[in-house]
Amino acid sequence: MVALVHPAREQLRIEDVLEALANPIRLRIVHRLAAGEELTCGTTLPEVSKSTASHHWRVLREGGVLFQRRVGRTVLMSLRREDLDARFPGLLASVLAAVDSD
Amino acid sequence: MVALVHPAREQLRIEDVLEALANPIRLRIVHRLAAGEELTCGTTLPEVSKSTASHHWRVLREGGVLFQRRVGRTVLMSLRREDLDARFPGLLASVLAAVDSD
Repeated sequence: MVALVHPAREQLRIEDVLEALANPIRLRIVHRLAAGEELTCGTTLPEVSKSTASHHWRVLREGGVLFQRRVGRTVLMSLRREDLDARFPGLLASVLAAVDSD
Repeated sequence: MVALVHPAREQLRIEDVLEALANPIRLRIVHRLAAGEELTCGTTLPEVSKSTASHHWRVLREGGVLFQRRVGRTVLMSLRREDLDARFPGLLASVLAAVDSD
């Protein structure tokens, strides 16, 4: 089973976070996770193929935008809001507001 | 001479702006332009090859992050701060602050 690697808060880089956010599907994921609950992959992107979804989770995880953890055979995801707010104050809020007004 | 095409303010899309910003060289360009002056290509990225620089100007222009205009044989660039602030309040400020603290 492949390990779910996450960059630490102090390793987050603005260009990686921007890249992770720079996609309509990934913005939708982030927007759904912003409600605060942990979600499974299936509930967050039900209409996207498994391989496409996997790619997007990986980009978001490796960029430091979301946290994934395994519970049995399920992967649960949550937004790294505290880490993002600590490192890049105001960034997530402005991006979420832009998605809201879309 | 190729026309310098710019998206109108209302055409700006958050994913395109994020993509345009998601690169260390482009972040450096934006940071330099944030001082407010119009700059020439040569003064903004003196250490980068012409073709690499051209690519980055284009991504920034097409994403709606900067404005380019020709004056004789020179291209002058400026940051579209008002447009970005109007459409995505707080985004540019948070990104610039992240670059500052780097």
